[in-house]
Amino acid sequence: MKMAHLITNCSFSTSPAVKTFSGSPSYHLNVGQLQNSKSSNLCFKSCSKRQKKSYVTCASAAVQGKTQTPLTGSQQASDQSSSKPKKVMVIGGDGYCGWATALHLSNKGYEVAIVDNLVRRLFDHQLGLDSLTPITSIQDRIRRWKSLTGKTIQLFIGDICDFEFLSEAFKSFEPDAAVHFGEQRSAPYSMIDRSRAVYTQHNNVIGTLNVLFAIKEYSEECHLVKLGTMGEYGTPNIDIEEGFITITHNGRTDTLPYPKQASSFYHLSKVHDSHNIAFTCKAWGIRATDLNQGVVYGLRTDETAMHEELSNRFDYDGVFGTALNRFCVQAAVGHPLTVYGKGGQTRGYLDIRDTVQCVELAIANPAKPGEFRVFNQFTEQFSVNELAKLVTAAGAKLGLDVQTKSGPNPRVEAEEHYYNAKHTKLIELGLVPHLLSDSLLDSLLNFAVQYKDRVDTAQIMPSVSWKKMGAKPRTVSV
Amino acid sequence: MKMAHLITNCSFSTSPAVKTFSGSPSYHLNVGQLQNSKSSNLCFKSCSKRQKKSYVTCASAAVQGKTQTPLTGSQQASDQSSSKPKKVMVIGGDGYCGWATALHLSNKGYEVAIVDNLVRRLFDHQLGLDSLTPITSIQDRIRRWKSLTGKTIQLFIGDICDFEFLSEAFKSFEPDAAVHFGEQRSAPYSMIDRSRAVYTQHNNVIGTLNVLFAIKEYSEECHLVKLGTMGEYGTPNIDIEEGFITITHNGRTDTLPYPKQASSFYHLSKVHDSHNIAFTCKAWGIRATDLNQGVVYGLRTDETAMHEELSNRFDYDGVFGTALNRFCVQAAVGHPLTVYGKGGQTRGYLDIRDTVQCVELAIANPAKPGEFRVFNQFTEQFSVNELAKLVTAAGAKLGLDVQTKSGPNPRVEAEEHYYNAKHTKLIELGLVPHLLSDSLLDSLLNFAVQYKDRVDTAQIMPSVSWKKMGAKPRTVSV
Repeated sequence: MKMAHLITNCSFSTSPAVKTFSGSPSYHLNVGQLQNSKSSNLCFKSCSKRQKKSYVTCASAAVQGKTQTPLTGSQQASDQSSSKPKKVMVIGGDGYCGWATALHLSNKGYEVAIVDNLVRRLFDHQLGLDSLTPITSIQDRIRRWKSLTGKTIQLFIGDICDFEFLSEAFKSFEPDAAVHFGEQRSAPYSMIDRSRAVYTQHNNVIGTLNVLFAIKEYSEECHLVKLGTMGEYGTPNIDIEEGFITITHNGRTDTLPYPKQASSFYHLSKVHDSHNIAFTCKAWGIRATDLNQGVVYGLRTDETAMHEELSNRFDYDGVFGTALNRFCVQAAVGHPLTVYGKGGQTRGYLDIRDTVQCVELAIANPAKPGEFRVFNQFTEQFSVNELAKLVTAAGAKLGLDVQTKSGPNPRVEAEEHYYNAKHTKLIELGLVPHLLSDSLLDSLLNFAVQYKDRVDTAQIMPSVSWKKMGAKPRTVSV
Repeated sequence: MKMAHLITNCSFSTSPAVKTFSGSPSYHLNVGQLQNSKSSNLCFKSCSKRQKKSYVTCASAAVQGKTQTPLTGSQQASDQSSSKPKKVMVIGGDGYCGWATALHLSNKGYEVAIVDNLVRRLFDHQLGLDSLTPITSIQDRIRRWKSLTGKTIQLFIGDICDFEFLSEAFKSFEPDAAVHFGEQRSAPYSMIDRSRAVYTQHNNVIGTLNVLFAIKEYSEECHLVKLGTMGEYGTPNIDIEEGFITITHNGRTDTLPYPKQASSFYHLSKVHDSHNIAFTCKAWGIRATDLNQGVVYGLRTDETAMHEELSNRFDYDGVFGTALNRFCVQAAVGHPLTVYGKGGQTRGYLDIRDTVQCVELAIANPAKPGEFRVFNQFTEQFSVNELAKLVTAAGAKLGLDVQTKSGPNPRVEAEEHYYNAKHTKLIELGLVPHLLSDSLLDSLLNFAVQYKDRVDTAQIMPSVSWKKMGAKPRTVSV
C-alpha cells in the first residue's frame, strides 16, 4: 500500500495564525496517531504491518499552490528553487544542526520532510540533561513554522534502523536529496559504557547503510548529503586534506582516501560510514557528499530566531555540550572554564549559521552519480586555550570575572600538536563564513546570562573517562 | 556465579582410544546440555539468566597432568609451551581457518578453547550449500581429537554479539590470547541482499567490539589476534605496506594508517574492525595483532589429516568457495574454470598450513601492551589467470581437459591493476612458507576428483551481483 496516500490525506485547512492549530479535528487525529507511534518507535522489526502505519505521521498539512508569506530580513526568497532539487529529506531534523537546517532549507524554498525518532530527547531524560533553551515539541515547532511562513514541513517519526519505516518514508516523499544528521553525535556519550558504544556504532553504521539501500532501491538519483566529522582525521603531523590525499611512494603515485585516526567510538562510527558510502558510490553509482564538520557553536539562525517556539536546543553539559557554547555558560554562572589538560587541542570550528549554509550549498550543487565528494566543513581553527581567552575577554566586557581551570583530560588525545586542515571546497561553492566575532561572542554570553537560572551546574563537568569508561549513573538532585 | 565450576565439573575419564567416547554417562550429560543450548544460541539479549547456563558447554573433559600422546610426523612437540602464553581462545574455531588453527595450537601445547555459535553451518543450510568434504559435528571433532592425542579442547557455544555469553567465556577460560576468526567471512554473502549486508557489518563490528570490551574487563593482558583481510587495502596504484605508511606531504612527515579501499560490505566490516581495534590499543592499552590475510587455499594440515573426523570443510561454491579451491573442483567435474572478467585480478594467497603457522607465530610473539600491529598474511601473489593456467596444467597430468571460460564479473573491482603488497613481518618472525607447488596442486585436484560425486554443479556459479544485489533465493533440486 502507498503511504503517500496516507500522508496527503491528512491535510487540514489552516492559516499562518497560531489559533488555527488549536482545534481542528483532523489535527487532533494526527496527534492521536503520533501518541500511538511513540511507543512503537521503540520496537524494531517485530512490529506488525498494522502497527507500522502509525510510524508515518503528518504533523502539518500539505498546502499546495499557496502564496508564499513574505520573508523578513536577510532571508532569501525561494525563487532560486526552480533550478535546484526540490525535495529534501532531513534525517535527524529535530536535533541541534538538523532543526536549523530543516528550517533554513524550507525558507529557501525546498520542500522539506523531517525524519527523526526523537531519541535525542530520550538521551536527555535518561542522563538527566536539558537544553539551556526551552525547546518545544517537534510537532509544535513545525506548526509554528507553518503559522509564521505558510511553509509545510512533513514529519516522519521513526527509526532509520528500521528499513520498513525508512522505505515507506522514501517511497512517500521521493526525496531529491537526503541530508543525514540522524546519528548519535556525541563522543562522550559513545564512551560512557559498552552498551552506549555498541549503540552508537550500531545506530550510526546500520542507519547509514539503510539510507544507502533506500536510495538505491527507491530514489536512485537522490543525492546523499552525509554529516561526517573533522574528528575522523585525528591530529596527523601533516596537513589534512579534504577526504583524499595524493601519495607518491616508491616511485609510484595514487590519490587515496585520507588516512583516518578517530578517537572515540562515535568518531569511529563516522569513519565507518565514510568507507561504506565511498563503496556504494563506486558499486551502485550513489551520489554522495560527506561533510566533515568541525565543532559547531552558536544558537540562532535567521529562521530559529523568528519565534521562541522555533528556538534551537543549546547543550552545555559534559556529554553533548561543545567547547565554545559550554565556555559561555560556564562564564555566565561563574564556573571556571574547564580546559582539559594542556588546552592545546586545536580543531576546526564553525557558526551554526554556516552549517545550514554549507548544507544548502552542497544540495544546490549536487555530486555527480557515482561521485563520493568530501568537504571539510568549518571556517576557522582554534585551540581550546584560544577559545578560553576569547570568552574571558568577552566576559570582562560584561563585568564577569572569568577564571580558567585546567583539569585532567577525560579524553585520549594529543594536547599539543600540529593542525592544519584544508577547507576551501565549500568556499569555492560560495560559502560566505560567519567568522567568530566579538559581537557573536557577546550575544552568546548575553544569552547564557539571560538563561543562567536554568543552568544545572552538575551537568557542566564531564562524567566520562576515555580510559576507564563505565560512567556512574548520574544522580540528579531534585 | 562462576561458570568455571560448571565447566571443570563436567570432566570425565577417557583414554586416547576412540571407543572410550561411546558410552560415558557424563559425556551424554554434556551432549544433553548441548542439545538444549542449540535453540538458545539463536536468542539474544532476551535470554534469561537461567537459560544462559546452557550456553557454556563442555564437550570434552579437562584432563590435567596427563602424559602427552606422542605426536607423529612433522608435528612439533609441545614442550616449547612453557615460555609462551598458555591459553588461547579461538573464536570461530569451527570454521575453515578456525578449526585448523585450533587443532594446530592444541598440538603445539597450548590450552585451547573454541568459541563459536556454529552459524556458518546454518548458512549452508539456508543457502543450500555443503562442504565438499563431509564434516562432523564440532562435538565429534573435539572428541576425536581427544581420543587421538589426549588433548582437550574446551567448547563454548554461543554468539559473541551476546556480551553476557562472551563475558562468561572470558571469565571462565581466562585466555592469554584470543584469536578472532568469528566473523561472517564471505564477500559474496555480504552482497546477497540488504539483510545480509547489515548482518555482516553488525555481526562483525559488534562482535569485535564485544571481544575488545571483554579483554578490557576480564583479561587486560590478553593478546588479541584478529583476522583481517588483504582486501581492506583494495588495489591502490602504489605498493601496499603492512598496516601503516609513512607519508611526506607539504614538507612534513608522519606515519599513518594505510588508506583503505574495501570492495564489499564484508571487506568493509574488516576495515571498521581495524579502526576500532587501533583506537582501543591507544585508549585502553589493548595489545593486538591484525592479520590481513590473503586468499587461503588447501585443505589439510598435519592435524586435520590425522583422521577423517578431523577433516576440514572445503567450500567450492560461488558464495564461500575461494579461487584456487573452486578451480580444482571445477576441473575435477569437467566444468570450465570460471574467470570473472579479464582475470587480471591479482591477490595474495597462502596455504592453510601457513594460516595456522602464522597465527601461532603471532601468539608466540605477542604485541606489547598498547601496540596495534598489522601483518600482511600471505606468501605469494597470483592473478586469477595465472591460477587458471596452473590448474589447467595440473589437470592435464591427470588426463583432465580443463577449459577456462571468462564470464561477466559479478564484482565491482579492477580487472587489470598494479599490485605489490609487502609481507615480510611474518617471515621475520620465522614463517617458513608452503609455496604453491605442483605436488600441492596435484593433491588438491586428486582430492577433488575423489569427491566429485558430491559436487553440486549448481553451487559453482555465482548468484550474486555487486551492482544489482538482491540474489534470487536459490532453488535446490532434490
